[in-house]
Formats: sequence, C-alpha cells, structure tokens
Amino acid sequence: MIQKVEAKDTLATSSYIVLPENTNTLGNLMGGQLLNWMDITSAISAHRHCRRVVVTAAVNNVSFQHPIKLGDIVTIAAQVSRSFNSSMEVYIEVSVEDHVSGAKTRCNEAMYTFVAVDQLGNPINVPELIPGNAEEQKRYDGALRRRQLRLILAGKLKPSDATELKALFEQ
Amino acid sequence: MIQKVEAKDTLATSSYIVLPENTNTLGNLMGGQLLNWMDITSAISAHRHCRRVVVTAAVNNVSFQHPIKLGDIVTIAAQVSRSFNSSMEVYIEVSVEDHVSGAKTRCNEAMYTFVAVDQLGNPINVPELIPGNAEEQKRYDGALRRRQLRLILAGKLKPSDATELKALFEQ
Amino acid sequence: MIQKVEAKDTLATSSYIVLPENTNTLGNLMGGQLLNWMDITSAISAHRHCRRVVVTAAVNNVSFQHPIKLGDIVTIAAQVSRSFNSSMEVYIEVSVEDHVSGAKTRCNEAMYTFVAVDQLGNPINVPELIPGNAEEQKRYDGALRRRQLRLILAGKLKPSDATELKALFEQ
Amino acid sequence: MIQKVEAKDTLATSSYIVLPENTNTLGNLMGGQLLNWMDITSAISAHRHCRRVVVTAAVNNVSFQHPIKLGDIVTIAAQVSRSFNSSMEVYIEVSVEDHVSGAKTRCNEAMYTFVAVDQLGNPINVPELIPGNAEEQKRYDGALRRRQLRLILAGKLKPSDATELKALFEQ
Amino acid sequence: MIQKVEAKDTLATSSYIVLPENTNTLGNLMGGQLLNWMDITSAISAHRHCRRVVVTAAVNNVSFQHPIKLGDIVTIAAQVSRSFNSSMEVYIEVSVEDHVSGAKTRCNEAMYTFVAVDQLGNPINVPELIPGNAEEQKRYDGALRRRQLRLILAGKLKPSDATELKALFEQ
Amino acid sequence: MIQKVEAKDTLATSSYIVLPENTNTLGNLMGGQLLNWMDITSAISAHRHCRRVVVTAAVNNVSFQHPIKLGDIVTIAAQVSRSFNSSMEVYIEVSVEDHVSGAKTRCNEAMYTFVAVDQLGNPINVPELIPGNAEEQKRYDGALRRRQLRLILAGKLKPSDATELKALFEQ
Repeated sequence: MIQKVEAKDTLATSSYIVLPENTNTLGNLMGGQLLNWMDITSAISAHRHCRRVVVTAAVNNVSFQHPIKLGDIVTIAAQVSRSFNSSMEVYIEVSVEDHVSGAKTRCNEAMYTFVAVDQLGNPINVPELIPGNAEEQKRYDGALRRRQLRLILAGKLKPSDATELKALFEQ
Repeated sequence: MIQKVEAKDTLATSSYIVLPENTNTLGNLMGGQLLNWMDITSAISAHRHCRRVVVTAAVNNVSFQHPIKLGDIVTIAAQVSRSFNSSMEVYIEVSVEDHVSGAKTRCNEAMYTFVAVDQLGNPINVPELIPGNAEEQKRYDGALRRRQLRLILAGKLKPSDATELKALFEQ
Repeated sequence: MIQKVEAKDTLATSSYIVLPENTNTLGNLMGGQLLNWMDITSAISAHRHCRRVVVTAAVNNVSFQHPIKLGDIVTIAAQVSRSFNSSMEVYIEVSVEDHVSGAKTRCNEAMYTFVAVDQLGNPINVPELIPGNAEEQKRYDGALRRRQLRLILAGKLKPSDATELKALFEQ
Repeated sequence: MIQKVEAKDTLATSSYIVLPENTNTLGNLMGGQLLNWMDITSAISAHRHCRRVVVTAAVNNVSFQHPIKLGDIVTIAAQVSRSFNSSMEVYIEVSVEDHVSGAKTRCNEAMYTFVAVDQLGNPINVPELIPGNAEEQKRYDGALRRRQLRLILAGKLKPSDATELKALFEQ
Repeated sequence: MIQKVEAKDTLATSSYIVLPENTNTLGNLMGGQLLNWMDITSAISAHRHCRRVVVTAAVNNVSFQHPIKLGDIVTIAAQVSRSFNSSMEVYIEVSVEDHVSGAKTRCNEAMYTFVAVDQLGNPINVPELIPGNAEEQKRYDGALRRRQLRLILAGKLKPSDATELKALFEQ
Repeated sequence: MIQKVEAKDTLATSSYIVLPENTNTLGNLMGGQLLNWMDITSAISAHRHCRRVVVTAAVNNVSFQHPIKLGDIVTIAAQVSRSFNSSMEVYIEVSVEDHVSGAKTRCNEAMYTFVAVDQLGNPINVPELIPGNAEEQKRYDGALRRRQLRLILAGKLKPSDATELKALFEQ
C-alpha cells in the first residue's frame, strides 16, 4: 500500500445545475439534496486517498449560509484534510456561480468523515496525508481538534483529555 | 403567534424500507440518502414547532455507528430540542428494526438546525420550547453549548466568550 | 412463530413534505406518488405483523377526496385490519396538516393487501390479528366482506357464495 | 366540445424495463412503482378521452397476480371503459414479455378513476364513451356496478339503491 | 435462433407526461431526461429484435427541434432500422400531443445503436432485419451510410473506403 | 456582452459513483443515465461560455466503448469546442478511475450542441470561442465538418455545399 498521499491528489469536484426536482417549496435547493451531493463528492475524495471502499462515518459542522436558487450552478470541491488510522476527514467547499460574471461565491462548507473498509465491512488502515500549502496545513491542524470534539460528543473521550481542543478555550 | 410549544408536540417520525435504489456498492444504505431522509423528517418537526416555512441552517454531529442493510426498516424520529430567536435545533434518532423480534436498535443520532423564514426568506422569530421529561431537559441544556460551538466554528464567537462550553473543559 | 398480534402493534407511520418533484402540472401531489408512499408504509405495517418478507397482493378502494398541495405535510398511518392464512389487509389513512393551526385533516383512505412469502417467494402463514378498540373491530369485520368482493372480482368466488357481502344488499 | 369518443381512441401504452432502482429486496418490481407507472399511463388515457387536465380520483381493485422480475419488460395498456359526468373509469392491463419467445403474459389488471378539472381544480363534464367491440362493451357494463360499489364504500349510496350491483347477488 | 425479424415486430412505444421533476429552469423537458427515456424505449425495441440482453453502443444524430413543455404528453416510438452482426440501429421518433385537438406533432428523432451480449458481456450475433414498407426500406438503406460515418468518426474506417457514404457527396 | 471566450475557461467537470440505482440488469451503468449526466455537465460548460440559459439542441456521435461497472468512479469533463451564432458545440470526455492505481481510462466521448436562449426561448448570439492548445484547435476545426454533417442530416444543407466535409471524402 502507498504510505503517504499529498492533499492535492485527493481533490474531487462536481458541478450540478439546481433543477426543479432539487428544490423546496420556496424554489431553493433542498438542504437534504445538497447533503446527499456532498456525501458523494467527498466519498470520491476519500476513495482517491486510500483506493478502498469507503463509508460515511460522520458529518460535522455543515452550515448553510446563503440560499441556493433554482437554476444556479453549484460546484462541490472536496479534499481530504487529514487521516487517522482507518478514518479520513474530508473538507468540502460549496460555491455558486454568478449567472452574469461567472464569479464563484463560496456559500457553505462542511466536514465529513469516512472510514475505509474491507469486503466484510471491517475498518482497514489508510495512508497518511501530507498537507501542501498553508491552507491545507491549517485544515490538517484543525482536524485533530475536530476529532477530539467528535470523540467527546460520542462519549468516547473525556473533555479533560482533549489537549488540543482544551487549549482553544484557554487562550 | 403561539408563545411556547412543548417539546413532545414537535415530534415527527418516518419509517422507510431500504430499497436497492438507496444502497451503496456494499448493499448498505448510502450515508447521503440517510442525511436526506433526516433533513425531511427534522424539517417537519421544526415546522410543527413554528408553523412557518423552515430552511436547513446547519447539520451538527451526525455519526453513523452501524451499517444499515438492504431490506432493513429504518425509523427516523425528530424532535425540537431548543429554540433561539429564529432558529430551532432538532434532535434526530435513527433506529433499525430487527427482522425477527421487531426490537428496535438505535443506530445513529444527529442534530440539525433550522431557521424559520417569511415569504422573502428573511428570518422570523419562533416560539420558545418547553422541555418536558428529563431527557428533553438534557437536550435543551446541551443545545446552548452546541450553539456556542457552532458560532465559534463559524468565526462568530470568541472561544473565551462561550461560557457554557468553556465550563465543560474546566471540569 | 408468534400466534397472535394485536392490531395496535402493527401501526406504521410516515410523514412527507410535498416537494416540487412530487407534483403534477397543477402543483398538487401526483396520485401515483401517493400510491407509492402508501405502498411502503403499509408494507412496513404488514411486516410488523408477520416479521417476514411481504409483497403487495392487491390495492382496494383508494379514494382521493381532496387535492394535496405543494408544501403540505402528509402523514400516512397504516395498520393491519385482519389476516387470512398468508395474507394481511392493511388499512391506511392519509392526513394533511394545516399550515397554521397544525390541525390534521383526513384526506383519503385506502386498503392494501399483502402476502407473506419465504425466500423462494412462496406464501407462508401469518399470525392471527386481534382487534382492540371498536374502530379496529369494525375494520376487522369489514375485511371479510372486502375479501369476498376481491375474490368475486378476481373470478375466484361466486357472488351467491359471498354470504357476508350478500347480506349487505339484502338489508 | 366533442360529444362522444370511441373507446379505441383512448388507448395509451407504455413499456418499461424493470431496473434495479425499481425493485424490492427480493429483486422483483415494487408494487408501489407499478402503481405509479399505471397512474401515469391511465392519466394519459383519460386525457385522450377529454383533452383536459385530469386528476386521479380513485383506484379500484388492483391485483398483483405474479411477481415481475428484474430485467422483465413490462407493458401497460390503458383504455377508458366508461365516463360519468366529470369522471372516467380507466381499465389497465399489465403484461410481461417472455425473454425468449417474446410472448406476452397478462400479469395483472386494474381500474383507476380520473376526474377532469378546470384551471381552478373544479370538475367539468367529459364526453360520452362509445364502446366498440364485445370486450369494450363488457367493461362498459361492469363500470356501472363498480361505480355503485365505489359510492357505497364511500358512504354516498345505500346498498339497496345500487340496482345493477344488487342484481349480481340475486342471480 | 430466429434468422430474420420483420421491422414492424420490433416496434416499442412509451408515453410520458412531462412532470415538474423532468423540467429545466425554463419549465421545459430537460434534454437529458428525454435522452434517458429514448434509451429505455429503444433498448426494448432492440430486445424485441434479438431476445437477448442489449447494451447501448452509440447515440447518433439526436436533434431537439422544438421545446417540450411541462404537462405535454410525449410519445416515443422506436423501431429497429437495420442489424449488423451483433449490433442493431434503432430509429426513434418523438411526438408531442396537442392538448385540445389531440393531433400529434413530431418534435424530434434520433438513432441509437445497441449491441446484443451474452452473460459475460461478449457480443453475440443477432437476426437479420427485414424492412417492410417504403419508409422502413429508406431507413434500412440509410443505416449503412450512418454506420460508415460512425466507423469513420471512431477512426475505424478510412473515408475513402466508405463507398455508400462517399456517393452522397459525389451527387 | 463578452466578445470572445477562451476554450479552457469553459471547462466543466463532474465525478459520480455508479450506484445500484444507476445500473442495468447486468450491473453496469445504464447508457441513458450516462447520457443524462453528460447533458448536465455539458450544459454547465455551454453556460460558462455564454452566461445565458442554454438548451440542448443536438447530440452527436456518442459512443460507449467499455462497460462501466457498479462502484466505478466516472468523471465527465466537458469543454466548448466551437461556437456558431447562437449555438455551441461541447466536447465531452468520460473517464473511469482504476480502483487500485487511480489511473484514469478514457471510456467514451461525445459531442452535444446547445443553443443560448432569452427568457422567451428565442435564440441569442453567443461569444466566439478561442481555441488554445493543439487539441482544442483540432476540435475547433472538426466542429465545422460536424456542423455541416448535422445540417445535411437535418435536410437543411445539400451535401454538395458542405465544402469542408466533402473534402474529407476526396482525400
């Protein structure tokens, strides 16, 4: 197995047009539809990291900041931010394109966690992730705090043991 | 407008059979499909709280603990845990039914946040939530910490100002 | 196998929001979409009765009394009304929720019949159903007449032999 | 408006391949999917009769006699059997094609009722149906009994007033 | 295996209503949805020719001449125009029905090519097609030129060897 | 309006996982599903060229060279190859990713044509396309021949007037 993978090699992108079948009663993109699209693109990113079957393990901190309208072009870009044993945190950025200028506006972001599994569904180890630029390094560092937070919320870690996360509140 | 709503009056439930069209390549329920189903049931719960159009504002802390198989019967139960001005946090519990005994196993839980909006999509105030039993009170208390966490993650609150959340790490 | 099941233990409910993808050209819920949703909820009810794989055997007497609009919240409640050898008749009630008061209006009802099958698709016996309250008893009694009617319509029973059904016309 | 329409001019047919997305956990066509397909084809038939918007008013007596397998080619043929004021009863025949010989086997039949409506959703009169061959005449005659039965089941007609239906039990 | 099949015996037709879920942001039928519907109907036609599993091999020359509106009834008629070893060219005609007069307007046409395959996905020979009327003969003759064109475009045939196609430009 | 657009600025890409709901009875991606996905990605590319609503005008020369399996990751890359008055030809390349090495294999290609329209659906002029590298220039040159071919097939151009296309057969 490959031991290390560079962050940039895990990038996956998908563009969609918001069609009537994707909208809610206000004519905007349904939150659940976007969650589904993000799941697929981020699963492809996680797969590119480990080249194994991956399953969604957690969704963390998705925020929907602006409504996305019928007819808008939505682009989802997903990239692994860090890996831990058998799991990978994927950072997802959703942008919408201006109809006239074509300028992309970032309209929300999310973190999904995937686990690599074998044929029987048991977790298997994944390569280490190597962050490249400053942005990737920042996400890599934040991933540890988010993992501690996830473990606390799942009751698997005592808050007092979450060293990196704790430091955030002591500043 | 109604000023206060009891937690139990916001309960919404939906049951689904996992069909081939909902599965991934391992024959298990796709994470994205479940996220979509949870979005609809929790939107109904939030709507029952405020009787207005609601839009998904955030997804927090979904964890997928057990794979859900083709043919399984999935029940999603959603109930508002707390409201803040125009937003409502909804607690969601997903259970799967044993084929033979019919016993339900809780297989994952999630928190979604919705905002009530008027016809133009602007936020409007919602009633206060009144927790009933101990479980509802516990979720109500936790909702404030989760809200602080969400605001910190969105860069809208300084960690040092998140009093309730901070206390968690000082224990 | 369990010999008897109480009617109330077979209840299955599902709530849906009518989205643009579910509507016809008048902006109302498509009849075929509702038939599909009723099929799933009633299959879950029949499954809860017998804990076996069930397949749709017949649809009887669905009537659509009021149009259901885009954005309406539809709740489908299904409960087994009676069982016969390997088949189960399921009573389904569809209600729509008032946007403002939250009051539920019953907007149509239906009867579906399911058959329990083994792995090869052959019919297998199911438990007896025990009606509880008066409403359940009434549906239980009516189920025999509906079954006779179904067998007559399928050419498997002579009208003169349908004792219970015949009595209805002799009053 | 056209006053009379011949039965044969209302024929609508559609063929489908049963794909994985249409199947249940046994790999057979879902009952609810077939009900949905039948709704669309019979709505087209009713529309061809009256050239107006039509909405599903009732489903009567669908029976699923044989399982339909993944990969089967399903053909749905729908034809108006009789009209009454603003409603039309549509007779539907579902057949499956043998993979090798191409012979079609009739695997179930159904009756759906549609109502013609104006822009506001109010019922409007439809042309009279003229049955052609003996088969069409037989369905035309039976439609009156089925209508009486439907009205009795909906509590809108006393069994003693359902002359044609009553006669069936007096033979 | 049957050696020869008459063109008329390969006819497959399907009618659809254009529902909101099939439309683009202008309220017209999405091109991609129509391509999907044509794929299914023409696959049924190819299957009726050879009674084997068929897979789409090519799409040739689809032109969308008129927009198809929400609520329109679309009829797709597909018929094999010629067969070559293991492949079949299918001619598809799409028509839309006038809401009032019921007159059908042809709104586009297409050619799809299918290949018959065995269980392992390997190509297998199909029967010869026998054109009947003048229209079928014309499509049969054109199929050879279209095949040459397809092979040229795929780089499998030199333009100078495409005798029938070349003749077209020498007139 | 922008007068000229560089080919590279019209690139649109989307990645999909082939799920059970996208497969045919052999467990491979349905041709019609891929045609639908290509329609969406190429519409985004055409939209990026002209920043107006675009509608599918034609599909030319899609060939499916290799079956795409359940679980495969499919990437669709679309780029405008040339524009003519109100129409744009889009070149589409479909590749599949090797599960282990991650190497992409090109598995088919296609040409779709779109037309830019105003609110009433009338065609409007689009910018000129500027090819960049040699590959883009080659597609740009070929687009004229394909356009002549399309017009001939639609009966709008006499073969003898299709100068560029004719030259191909005279070599």
